[in-house]
Amino acid sequence: MLPMPTRWWGWGDTAHSFSLAEHSRLWPFISSRIGELATANLPVDINAIELPPPRLGAAELSELAVLAGGESCLATDKESRVRHAYGKSYQDLIRLRRGQLDSPPDAIVFPRSHEAVMGILALAVHRQLPIVPFGGGTSVVGGITGPDQPYLVLSLAALNRLISVDSISRTARAQAGISGPELERSLAGYGMTLGHFPQSFEYSTLGGWIATRSAGQQSSQYGKIEDMVLALRLATPRGELATLALPAASDGPELKRFLAGSEGTLGVITEAVLRTWPIPATRDYQGILMPSFEAGITCIRQLLQKGLKPATLRLANTAETLATFAMRPTEPSGVRQWVNQLAKRWLGPLNDRCLLISGFEGTIAEVKRQKHYALKLAKEGYGGVSLGAKVGQEWYRQRFALPYLRDVLLDHGIMVDTLETATMWSNLSLLYQEVNKALETALANWGTPGLVLCHVSHAYLNGASLYFTFIARQDPDHVLEQWWACKSAALHAIVANGGALSHHHGVGRDHAPWLTKAIGPLGVQLIQSARHAIDPAGLLNPQVFAGTDKLQS
Amino acid sequence: MLPMPTRWWGWGDTAHSFSLAEHSRLWPFISSRIGELATANLPVDINAIELPPPRLGAAELSELAVLAGGESCLATDKESRVRHAYGKSYQDLIRLRRGQLDSPPDAIVFPRSHEAVMGILALAVHRQLPIVPFGGGTSVVGGITGPDQPYLVLSLAALNRLISVDSISRTARAQAGISGPELERSLAGYGMTLGHFPQSFEYSTLGGWIATRSAGQQSSQYGKIEDMVLALRLATPRGELATLALPAASDGPELKRFLAGSEGTLGVITEAVLRTWPIPATRDYQGILMPSFEAGITCIRQLLQKGLKPATLRLANTAETLATFAMRPTEPSGVRQWVNQLAKRWLGPLNDRCLLISGFEGTIAEVKRQKHYALKLAKEGYGGVSLGAKVGQEWYRQRFALPYLRDVLLDHGIMVDTLETATMWSNLSLLYQEVNKALETALANWGTPGLVLCHVSHAYLNGASLYFTFIARQDPDHVLEQWWACKSAALHAIVANGGALSHHHGVGRDHAPWLTKAIGPLGVQLIQSARHAIDPAGLLNPQVFAGTDKLQS
Repeated sequence: MLPMPTRWWGWGDTAHSFSLAEHSRLWPFISSRIGELATANLPVDINAIELPPPRLGAAELSELAVLAGGESCLATDKESRVRHAYGKSYQDLIRLRRGQLDSPPDAIVFPRSHEAVMGILALAVHRQLPIVPFGGGTSVVGGITGPDQPYLVLSLAALNRLISVDSISRTARAQAGISGPELERSLAGYGMTLGHFPQSFEYSTLGGWIATRSAGQQSSQYGKIEDMVLALRLATPRGELATLALPAASDGPELKRFLAGSEGTLGVITEAVLRTWPIPATRDYQGILMPSFEAGITCIRQLLQKGLKPATLRLANTAETLATFAMRPTEPSGVRQWVNQLAKRWLGPLNDRCLLISGFEGTIAEVKRQKHYALKLAKEGYGGVSLGAKVGQEWYRQRFALPYLRDVLLDHGIMVDTLETATMWSNLSLLYQEVNKALETALANWGTPGLVLCHVSHAYLNGASLYFTFIARQDPDHVLEQWWACKSAALHAIVANGGALSHHHGVGRDHAPWLTKAIGPLGVQLIQSARHAIDPAGLLNPQVFAGTDKLQS
Repeated sequence: MLPMPTRWWGWGDTAHSFSLAEHSRLWPFISSRIGELATANLPVDINAIELPPPRLGAAELSELAVLAGGESCLATDKESRVRHAYGKSYQDLIRLRRGQLDSPPDAIVFPRSHEAVMGILALAVHRQLPIVPFGGGTSVVGGITGPDQPYLVLSLAALNRLISVDSISRTARAQAGISGPELERSLAGYGMTLGHFPQSFEYSTLGGWIATRSAGQQSSQYGKIEDMVLALRLATPRGELATLALPAASDGPELKRFLAGSEGTLGVITEAVLRTWPIPATRDYQGILMPSFEAGITCIRQLLQKGLKPATLRLANTAETLATFAMRPTEPSGVRQWVNQLAKRWLGPLNDRCLLISGFEGTIAEVKRQKHYALKLAKEGYGGVSLGAKVGQEWYRQRFALPYLRDVLLDHGIMVDTLETATMWSNLSLLYQEVNKALETALANWGTPGLVLCHVSHAYLNGASLYFTFIARQDPDHVLEQWWACKSAALHAIVANGGALSHHHGVGRDHAPWLTKAIGPLGVQLIQSARHAIDPAGLLNPQVFAGTDKLQS
């Protein structure tokens, strides 16, 4: 395969990055909270990385290449091995930047068909060779972690086609390795969209979304990915496992919903049938400033429970609101001047204000009607102040850009990570406070007090998700230990207070220590028994759903 | 427990029945299609039934009573054993009416708490005693079938409370044995509804709905029961299995959706947290006459895909339309005269017309807007003719009444059964034709040509369900063989043509022979492995999900 024009040590396309020069207020904002910043702390040169030679023999490699579809479907070169060794979690990036690859894959296969995947799995069983399935490689929970023995990464990159569209039923069948942009581009040819736009959209894949129960930023309208899947096809070590495309059924325990979320452990998802929608005639995103996080939460809940169908309702807490405003481009624009004026005139200081982004998608009339209703309720019911469409549009335009900022912060020795959860409306404030407190305490205990930001990222009829970001100076001698102290404190608080283990990132290896607490010992055994039935030798993504609450290498 | 004022040999309350005198056109309509009718063929007197004595010892029974909550929580009398031996399938009713109870339960327990259910399961494991969980006893697929050995029925009848309401999150927690009317009455005290009204509503229970993935007649708006469940609590032989109430999550394979549909095999559902809705301000049901089944199907699809949110779109084929009109009360009412006039004037004979019931529920303004849109599209787009609200209201009023008619037909030696499936819109006409043909051919081959009726019962964005009724003279010497020939022919056609094994009745014992064809051998093994993990001794509802395609006793 041709090397991808993306960063092996960070996020996205090498042609894009987050420019500090264009966001000159951000730096002072962050350093005012976390203290002096380290000097440049850049990733090693890839040429400096030395990997042990692949532990697979020439005969085995040649057999794999044949099974996958030819010589071009196998890679053992260093760059490919580095690029497929990890996902994109904070821990992954730290290790990559250090060139610390303790257990890189011995080879990467790029099978060209479902049948080729089946063949590779059969060989893997024969040779007792673990397999780590790889979609876009964007996991932030350790979903891509190889075992301490020879193993194979199975990339779905060559299974990247839209297979067919059923315009009567409004569905599409696609291969699992198709990326977000490829899928949307293909569907657009039929006037359709999937409506699934997670922050990782540009690099993540359909199969990865399904395997991790991903949520797009418009999930209030389009649902989570598992709501969109009408059928799945998997290649497993014991044969094909496929479900029928059905609008609804009563055929026993729902397999499709059990296989979604299996994170590569119950087979390799190779195809899915998806619910699609006509591309909306219009999209309208607005910024609204709410007087408090509580008022914003109640307003969002009311909007949904009164029957509105927003695409997005996204509410930043005060800290994240301030960070968002600090992140606006440096050059004072008309918008910013107006916001500043407005803020001064109507709101006083921003200190306890919260930014709400409301988005509607659909027909022009319907979007207009709903937007007006939302603005009216926010203003009259909860003291919100409209910041207008430009703030909303700016959020929409920048909605995939934040991961680039993470790389810049890492370059400067700043720890930054995110985690998310969900709960019922009646428990949302408690969960928010407890996780916030856990993160702040963990940061302070480490001696690196920092910034804890939070927003309500996905809102539903009966509850919502909370998305936390924590930022602090790295402890240079204990970079991963510091991070794990914060992460594990937050996870403890989440499971102790009725939160979902994750809302849309998955379990991976990093959340696995809390899985038993989250779903109970019998729930874990149910998953283990399924795993044993499908994959008796335990070869599929063996590091996932397993682990202790100690930091793992 | 006090005996229920319901028919042990048939449907519902003994105070209600379907009166032939009040529906005098129905009899000629049926007999004109299926030939002369048999004379009365009534159920045996319960006093004439002799059951073998319970095979459980006094010590065991006394232990069970203590575990369940006292003497009143155990029954071993004949009537209780008869009433808990079967569900309400055609086969069940035939056996009951004959007094043919080959394997009645040895005892019935009515535990008073989740903990009591746990205690009974522990005892069952200790004594290797199979357990058949029993909700409302309305299964029509053999979901309540005891094994050929001593066993216990575990009735949820005493677990019938609404536990709590979360008005902020708009959810309710209820015990699984609560019946439809009890649940709705309790929720109404909070101004809420679940919106789940299957035909069995008056007698079926929350736990039964969840265990079989039931669908209410308003599923287009409120979803199927599995869409409404936010959390489940089960008692299992290996301990409690409970999921957290969450609006959405990414915590691995979705257990809640796997446990729903488990039909008593993965534990006894004791509680659920449910999404609730404010009671709609208004309900509007309309009758529309469509020029053909095809036109009706396309119209329904368009209504949904254009964004309407109907509660019900229910389209009868021509045969069922004629049957529906023949079933109207005898006395000519203003409505009927008007329908007849209208039909004569605008439509000519009814021979290829199809009755569509469209129902909307919600705010007055929204219901009005949607109804007008639906009527306009049906009329202008597809040649529909409005029959007005009275036809719709009549359907709504009678929506739980049809099972009473079945008993009357059985009294007269008529075979009548229903079965249902679902598929994507693009496959709906093919599936309809193939199942229709299979049933007609099976009836003809048996020498008892009859009536095959069908309606689209539940419609979704991407597809819909088909609900078939077949009616013929019984073959008195081979009553069950005749029925099985028809039922199995339909099921063969369903699985051969991409239909769901069932849309909302479940697998039970009767559909189990086609389970492997429907979900694949690996899918079946996945369920079996889960069953083994939760219930290693195989004690929970052992007859379900297992069986051959031979008629089983």
